[in-house]
Amino acid sequence: MSQNREIIGIVGGVGPYAGLDLMQKVFDQTVAGTDQDYPSVIHMSFSADIAPRPEFLLGASEVNPGPALGRIMARLARAGATLLAMPCNTAHAAPILDAALRELDDSLRSVPPSTAHVRFLSLLDAVTDALRDRLPSTGGGRPVGLLSTRATFETGLYQRCLEPAGYIPLFPDGMGRELVQSAINNPDFGIKTHARPVTPQARNILLDAARDLADRGAEAILLACTEIPLALPEPRLFGLPVLDSTLILARALVRAVAPERLKPWPE
Amino acid sequence: MSQNREIIGIVGGVGPYAGLDLMQKVFDQTVAGTDQDYPSVIHMSFSADIAPRPEFLLGASEVNPGPALGRIMARLARAGATLLAMPCNTAHAAPILDAALRELDDSLRSVPPSTAHVRFLSLLDAVTDALRDRLPSTGGGRPVGLLSTRATFETGLYQRCLEPAGYIPLFPDGMGRELVQSAINNPDFGIKTHARPVTPQARNILLDAARDLADRGAEAILLACTEIPLALPEPRLFGLPVLDSTLILARALVRAVAPERLKPWPE
Repeated sequence: MSQNREIIGIVGGVGPYAGLDLMQKVFDQTVAGTDQDYPSVIHMSFSADIAPRPEFLLGASEVNPGPALGRIMARLARAGATLLAMPCNTAHAAPILDAALRELDDSLRSVPPSTAHVRFLSLLDAVTDALRDRLPSTGGGRPVGLLSTRATFETGLYQRCLEPAGYIPLFPDGMGRELVQSAINNPDFGIKTHARPVTPQARNILLDAARDLADRGAEAILLACTEIPLALPEPRLFGLPVLDSTLILARALVRAVAPERLKPWPE
Repeated sequence: MSQNREIIGIVGGVGPYAGLDLMQKVFDQTVAGTDQDYPSVIHMSFSADIAPRPEFLLGASEVNPGPALGRIMARLARAGATLLAMPCNTAHAAPILDAALRELDDSLRSVPPSTAHVRFLSLLDAVTDALRDRLPSTGGGRPVGLLSTRATFETGLYQRCLEPAGYIPLFPDGMGRELVQSAINNPDFGIKTHARPVTPQARNILLDAARDLADRGAEAILLACTEIPLALPEPRLFGLPVLDSTLILARALVRAVAPERLKPWPE
């Protein structure tokens, strides 16, 4: 096995199907003629170890899932991963991600320096870059509609990175945000436990929310939760481009490890 | 992280999409109400390191992919996997699997005994068990149609396990086997490089072969190559039950690590 090639490390389990979707999109976005042309990937899906992210961020639980995520990152690095990615927008909120990266740093202090070369590819950075590329800022602030968990909204995760980049983030109203949250994790119809197939109820809630954002002037719909693309796979909705955060992360990974093999953006 | 719980280790990359399909089927076959209910999985997809299996078995290459597969198994074990599975029928041929398991044994000799508890779950054993369960032998020998790579046919892999279990394996004729092989790995239309979506050409070749086996009296169609279920997802074809070797392996894994969470067989 080559010592200096890149190995993608997927911090999976947040949720399990979002991890699968990221891995599949890494392969889908790669130009390949044989098995041997695909990037190397280690995917650890340890969902049982990772406390729920929204509950912690919204104050309903004191268990920060960050340290467990950091231990998985360190385990990926020790197994050989060189470039880590985590297909969960909510887990990129500072209270979780900072704790995870601190744990990763601490864990790697006690291992051979070779494993310390691991980097973390932020989903938020990848999305901001993709937005600049797909919807260049005109200076006046372009409105972008976001579908996300309640916790992603309430922690201001995207507001803080999109506004300085020249975008105006539009979210559903309070009731709309509750409905989107239910489409993600309601035990009876939510995507987390009904991913294959997604229920019509979950899909319809998300379509209604996207239509509302389009009506309010959004110029693109950003799927800012990695469960949502499982229900809304279309590249365009209501005449607007759909920016799938999982697809964006997958493309950023392929660009980082095998840029010559990256497919064109799927229209 | 619990020290004594089971972690499934997927030897992926053979091919990349077959590995994804196995991981997805592990989740699909699990009864889950939250993210935390799914089994823990480590999936290593290192397809660039694994020489082609059919070429070696058919004498077109002297590079045995077995040792590389064994090193991936050992890497999975060192990362914490306790139950290994490899979603590739062809790689279960003795010249490859024996070399892989020897390499695994050798690699684990130098590590702490805790990692030495890893077991390998044979796809062939899982398929034979599933066949006994879904199509009980009547003593007289029940004909089962198989779609597989040429190498799986020529090494007699399934002939050797099905005949003693009371089944008569039926394969397509010589031209039919070539066509099935092309549906798997032809660079222009084969599943290995055109998995999403599968091409109509690949699917039609496989449907024709399955129909021919049904016409010849097969009582079930065994998809004995893990690429084929990507093109033939139906639970029944031409009035016969379809036995998907990837689904069977996924169910055997869930049964081994969380039997109380295994869904009923999908009809």
